[in-house]
Amino acid sequence: MTLLDSLRNPDDLKKLPAERLPQLAAEIREFLVTEVTRTGGHLGPNLGVVELTIALHRVFDSPRDPILFDTGHQSYVHKLLTGRKDFSGLRSRGGLSGYPSRAESEHDFIENSHASTVLSYADGLAKANEVQGRRDRTVAAVVGDGALTGGMAWEALNNIAARHDRRVVIVVNDNGRSYSPTMGGLADHLASLRMTQGYEQALDLAKAALNRAPVVGQPLYEALHGLKKGIKDAIQPQMMFEDLGLKYVGPIDGHDAAMVEKALRRARDFGGPVIVHCITQKGKGHAPAENHEEDQFHSIGAAKTAPAGAPSAPAPRKWTSVFSEEMVAIGAEREDVVAITAAMLHPTGLAPFAEAYPDRCFDVGIAEQHAATSATGLAMGGLHPVVAVYATFLNRCFDQVLMDAALHRQGVTFCLDRSGVTGPDGASHHGMWDLSILQVVPGLRLAVPRDAPRLREQLREAVAVEDAPTVVRYPTGAVAPEIEAVGRVGTMDVLRRATRANHSEDLLLIAVGPMAETCCEVADRMADQGIGVTVIDPRWVKPLDEAIVGEAARHRVVAVVEDNGRVGAVGDAVARTLRDADLDIPVRTFGIEQEFLDHAKRGDILADMGLTPQSLARELTETVSRHAERGVGDTAGAKP
Amino acid sequence: MTLLDSLRNPDDLKKLPAERLPQLAAEIREFLVTEVTRTGGHLGPNLGVVELTIALHRVFDSPRDPILFDTGHQSYVHKLLTGRKDFSGLRSRGGLSGYPSRAESEHDFIENSHASTVLSYADGLAKANEVQGRRDRTVAAVVGDGALTGGMAWEALNNIAARHDRRVVIVVNDNGRSYSPTMGGLADHLASLRMTQGYEQALDLAKAALNRAPVVGQPLYEALHGLKKGIKDAIQPQMMFEDLGLKYVGPIDGHDAAMVEKALRRARDFGGPVIVHCITQKGKGHAPAENHEEDQFHSIGAAKTAPAGAPSAPAPRKWTSVFSEEMVAIGAEREDVVAITAAMLHPTGLAPFAEAYPDRCFDVGIAEQHAATSATGLAMGGLHPVVAVYATFLNRCFDQVLMDAALHRQGVTFCLDRSGVTGPDGASHHGMWDLSILQVVPGLRLAVPRDAPRLREQLREAVAVEDAPTVVRYPTGAVAPEIEAVGRVGTMDVLRRATRANHSEDLLLIAVGPMAETCCEVADRMADQGIGVTVIDPRWVKPLDEAIVGEAARHRVVAVVEDNGRVGAVGDAVARTLRDADLDIPVRTFGIEQEFLDHAKRGDILADMGLTPQSLARELTETVSRHAERGVGDTAGAKP
Repeated sequence: MTLLDSLRNPDDLKKLPAERLPQLAAEIREFLVTEVTRTGGHLGPNLGVVELTIALHRVFDSPRDPILFDTGHQSYVHKLLTGRKDFSGLRSRGGLSGYPSRAESEHDFIENSHASTVLSYADGLAKANEVQGRRDRTVAAVVGDGALTGGMAWEALNNIAARHDRRVVIVVNDNGRSYSPTMGGLADHLASLRMTQGYEQALDLAKAALNRAPVVGQPLYEALHGLKKGIKDAIQPQMMFEDLGLKYVGPIDGHDAAMVEKALRRARDFGGPVIVHCITQKGKGHAPAENHEEDQFHSIGAAKTAPAGAPSAPAPRKWTSVFSEEMVAIGAEREDVVAITAAMLHPTGLAPFAEAYPDRCFDVGIAEQHAATSATGLAMGGLHPVVAVYATFLNRCFDQVLMDAALHRQGVTFCLDRSGVTGPDGASHHGMWDLSILQVVPGLRLAVPRDAPRLREQLREAVAVEDAPTVVRYPTGAVAPEIEAVGRVGTMDVLRRATRANHSEDLLLIAVGPMAETCCEVADRMADQGIGVTVIDPRWVKPLDEAIVGEAARHRVVAVVEDNGRVGAVGDAVARTLRDADLDIPVRTFGIEQEFLDHAKRGDILADMGLTPQSLARELTETVSRHAERGVGDTAGAKP
Repeated sequence: MTLLDSLRNPDDLKKLPAERLPQLAAEIREFLVTEVTRTGGHLGPNLGVVELTIALHRVFDSPRDPILFDTGHQSYVHKLLTGRKDFSGLRSRGGLSGYPSRAESEHDFIENSHASTVLSYADGLAKANEVQGRRDRTVAAVVGDGALTGGMAWEALNNIAARHDRRVVIVVNDNGRSYSPTMGGLADHLASLRMTQGYEQALDLAKAALNRAPVVGQPLYEALHGLKKGIKDAIQPQMMFEDLGLKYVGPIDGHDAAMVEKALRRARDFGGPVIVHCITQKGKGHAPAENHEEDQFHSIGAAKTAPAGAPSAPAPRKWTSVFSEEMVAIGAEREDVVAITAAMLHPTGLAPFAEAYPDRCFDVGIAEQHAATSATGLAMGGLHPVVAVYATFLNRCFDQVLMDAALHRQGVTFCLDRSGVTGPDGASHHGMWDLSILQVVPGLRLAVPRDAPRLREQLREAVAVEDAPTVVRYPTGAVAPEIEAVGRVGTMDVLRRATRANHSEDLLLIAVGPMAETCCEVADRMADQGIGVTVIDPRWVKPLDEAIVGEAARHRVVAVVEDNGRVGAVGDAVARTLRDADLDIPVRTFGIEQEFLDHAKRGDILADMGLTPQSLARELTETVSRHAERGVGDTAGAKP
């Protein structure tokens, strides 16, 4: 029986003698490498927080003292230490979530995996303790150095610091690279804390002092703090955190469990807001991860592609790669095109552009708001910025897209990767909101390419627009099969045309982007039943081409299929457009049910939602039959 | 002819001898007090930046060097100095905007009046200069101390600092009170810069040194900077801005024009990012404003209510006051109810709650993201937070409402003041987005009270919900007339019932909140034409009561009227609900056209949009007539 096997809960961990901790850490690493290599998941970040998480659970009394993780993809060790050891179904339906999950454990608080939020939760939980007189509880929050570049983190720090007895311990897990090397002034500052005059030297000094000091209560903390002052002054004479009124401890070697534990204990006992600055190494203890230049195995796929150096079949072509290549090509033709990423240079495919045009690519950190508004400034200055971001993160700069880019009618292009149902990362990663919330933005133009040629083409159309923001959205994974148009209506592509031979024009099926493949299959199935279906890809879903009204009027029923939440998206827009033209024709809209989706495979989720050709064909056949008695073009009440 | 009269543009200003500046400042103040007292507008903030704005236009070469104002309500002096002196129509249709306006002048860049954005624009404009090799241009950005509590400002500072030769001069206009006293650790830090060991003493020291120093180029800047180091160390040994890599100059007496001008000149010539910290006094030079405790005449109404101490008729009851009173009452009954404001304690009506329960009210600064997520933390900690915010600012925390409050199913209540068309503050103040974007948030419940009794009642219903976020939205200004229900359908109030005597049930008119008054008048007008209209107030517009389907089925036509952008709002939700029930009945939706609205009176804007009883009755009468041949309940194709 291993040490890890013997631990049922954090209380067992607390009873473990300190000298057994290195063995426990080694066992946990072995477990993670074995399990996560098999299932896929966030390996690098979790290898980096093994000792830190052990220390957290030895010092704090979870869940009375909540232990909160920002973004949550580094919570695997926390799961292991709170009794969740069956990783066999990690990120699969019915298995463990890849993030904290309130349904899984009372030790889990935050399921949202958007960055920089944790300190605000901590502030709220600490205030709740204050209001209810629970002065003996402490909130611990773990946040990456990258997440500190997000404005929300600063808002929270400012509030946490407003009360000197607010019991919050902020652990900065500083690996110097969030998804990739952290950008900006803050990064320089943290780097100087790490590097100037030697981080090792500082640690040695701190260790020696700690070994001398007795381990109790606040005076000790003050001693440590005084000592730290000495260290800090040697490394960097000024410290922004203290200017905000936050005590600071560090830097600490985050892989020295005893050292981290002592620092956390003192921070907890101080009784006010304290930052504990831990230096960790992403991928620690697993050579292939440590040596991986790009992101230290930030997130890996399941077994077949995971082992380093193993031969593998050629990967299918991905949406991201198509975007990536086209951006490099556009960059060569147009010197005014610049690119912006929010700490996602590689995942968004902008890295080749940055390499080709280093002066024209800006990584702004985990700062989507700033990304959108500085892009607006770039546009005002005469350039055409392309902001590449995951679809789900666009929500974070909605106000900036609306009030900055759109209000000022600036030509800024937003490229939304990972749109629609994404799969195993869970509720907060699905890109199922953008087609709805962007509908309200005046002037904004929105393209949903159905395949790779359309992505290239529409990206070019987008960067050609100079008086309004444009958006191009595409999913994760392999590109959809190419579907050539058989005709055009206005600016819309006709993919299938219901013909008289097909009886009559029963159904106009509007396929939003990559749902074209499904829609064409629906049409084929329904044609087999003798139902005439026209399939149209509007290409630009906002504004809708007005020709859609005339086209709809030639059919009995209109249906819209999209890979987005059903509420307020393209389906609703089509229905409104027809109503506004006094065309009162039955419309049916299909998309993702408007709920938070559990982690599962993309295909399973789509099937659950009835977004398969079989299910859609069945439901639409029924709808068309029900309206069959109504003649084509019988648009009762339509204006002449 | 006054000095002010003689200035046609910034070039004229640059030629003015320095000794004439105090006279110019006095003339500008007199002009502002006279004009703004008459028209209404932001008086206090503009009186505070007279010398600062003069100095900016003498030092920078606008618009080559863009001068950017955060929030923009302090741009009146800028308007005067760039040739706009006719303030007679300020904030009225056809007159000057109360904010910068790109249509008004090439000297104006940013129209958005949401706070904390300016540094991101500055970063973008500076990067555009860099990419295009315009190394001789500088961007100047004026930001209030309050706006620095917003996370976006931090994101931008972090980025601006990333290049040591980025030519951005950041002027912190520090009056120690944004809308009201600034909260949090940052405020303490700025306060210590102002107060410790005496701000006056520091200024005297700085003045003496400046008088000794020759006025040229970077070495001089370095001298000033070295001097400043001395001042700074005397005041506060650590300085967060420099930790980020930003040079810092200050504090400067913002009402000493010569001093400000010298500091700006040096900052400009330094050639990298510099913060110039100016201490100003809101309302400066106008005793009634200076002495006004609450907000120094932040924004005043037009003449009739403006003069201090003048007797006035009793003000009509306002939505905000109703909310304010009910919150105090609820607070007395429920100890678990706490309140949160984002630097809007007085405008949102939370001040009485804060006075009654000081430990249960939190002002988080201009930090809506943090407001929403810390509220989620408070709810997780066992309390019920009420976040009071202007409707337009909810956009800034959309991701947090969705991914924090809603995803975690926490009982957080958001109260949206100033919803719908607000009037003279212009495009970015209209609260016309919330009813749309909130539709997509799973589980969220959304109430739109039609009058004061309903606001009290629904606020109580909202704070009783513990497993989902709730939203209560209400407009600016005087409460709507009370309308009692004549019946109920499910949880919905029936306000008018079409009777057989009224011929038949022609139209179901769904009135969203305060549009009830208009809708009842529409019904009365149409009844006079022999058309039977039922008016329903759904009270909770999300989720919609399913009884709406059966009710709709009894009418020929359904219409929805709301004070929100038409796209994706309640009208679209009603239409979708009926479609999903296979009820294919004509639906018409009325609301604000989905565009950015110019500043104008609320009534004028509603009339333009056809949201008057007369216009609605005319259009709906026509629609009903067109569908008259269709029988009641003839819902062809509806499922059995």
